[in-house]
Amino acid sequence: MSEPAAEEAARHRARMSKRKAVQDAEVAAKTIEKGLLVVHTGKGKGKSTAAFGLALRMLGHGRRAAVVQFIKGGWQSGERAALARFDDLLEWHTMGEGFTWETQDRARDIAACARAWAVSETLLRRQDIALVILDELNIALRYDYLALDSVLAALKARPSMQHVVITGRNAKAELLAQADLVTEMTPIKHHFAAGVRAQQGIEF
Amino acid sequence: MSEPAAEEAARHRARMSKRKAVQDAEVAAKTIEKGLLVVHTGKGKGKSTAAFGLALRMLGHGRRAAVVQFIKGGWQSGERAALARFDDLLEWHTMGEGFTWETQDRARDIAACARAWAVSETLLRRQDIALVILDELNIALRYDYLALDSVLAALKARPSMQHVVITGRNAKAELLAQADLVTEMTPIKHHFAAGVRAQQGIEF
Repeated sequence: MSEPAAEEAARHRARMSKRKAVQDAEVAAKTIEKGLLVVHTGKGKGKSTAAFGLALRMLGHGRRAAVVQFIKGGWQSGERAALARFDDLLEWHTMGEGFTWETQDRARDIAACARAWAVSETLLRRQDIALVILDELNIALRYDYLALDSVLAALKARPSMQHVVITGRNAKAELLAQADLVTEMTPIKHHFAAGVRAQQGIEF
Repeated sequence: MSEPAAEEAARHRARMSKRKAVQDAEVAAKTIEKGLLVVHTGKGKGKSTAAFGLALRMLGHGRRAAVVQFIKGGWQSGERAALARFDDLLEWHTMGEGFTWETQDRARDIAACARAWAVSETLLRRQDIALVILDELNIALRYDYLALDSVLAALKARPSMQHVVITGRNAKAELLAQADLVTEMTPIKHHFAAGVRAQQGIEF
């Protein structure tokens, strides 16, 4: 190695060594373990997909997970088929009957949400389930198809080590206040605008 | 149903019916099918997790996917274990040796990235792979561990129906310009700030 290159390598090592010390101290300072209330919101893609990725991670550790779909019906055949390989560890409840503009029947949507919430409440009491995904619950809350207070109370009363992921646009401020981890998925560029249709493996 | 309730139900139906017409027209207007170049960037969580969720979706359709990890080493044992159930359809290449502050050796990091890119180039020529995930490639590009021009050229020359997902903070502007779908994961609230440590099934 030439002398300037050796100096540059040494500088890099020193910089990274300092950064590692900071990083290690930060990791050491975090000692709490608890079930997290996670919210994926925003208008961008990836809210449900990242939740399914988390389910995958949890299942990979041999722990149990459950999914309740509040709004979507026939969509997401791809991950359903994939997750069928985990039916020893995963429970899946598709309660919604499609988007609200598909059913066009508010009373039926409210009834479907109430049924989905009843299932969710049972899951939120089970110690054996490490992760509960309440997919598109934010939509149900946004349209006032469910009482926010009961949802917040059930989340608060759940087993202390149970993780919950709630997805959907327009998350309520009260839910965000109670959450531990909130990520907003922001659309920067979308292929639909360029006339590209929904495709297998990407959208469904 | 009382008269006002019936009227409200009718109004809801009319509103949703109009919305469905708009929605259907939008869907019908999109006719192009193509392999998408997808970028997940931003400082928030969910970039890699959403990519793994997409892999799951693709595998669920019985199509082949491949993952190249540019930076991470021992992390993500959870999804690796889970995705092992798909080794008939999924190829996984962990090329990175950890974060740059772990190795503290720039030359070694550059060599690891070059090896990861060589594998990626092979994958980007294969017609049989429906989805290629280049995990944390943005980090390698950001530190100039790889030549941006070669990456952009290989992406452009790939099979026309192959989807690619690139993850990592600080995506280069030239990459975003070439991308079809870009989502930024924005952190709104993070449990690390409250002293909660990385936990099994969430971070790894």
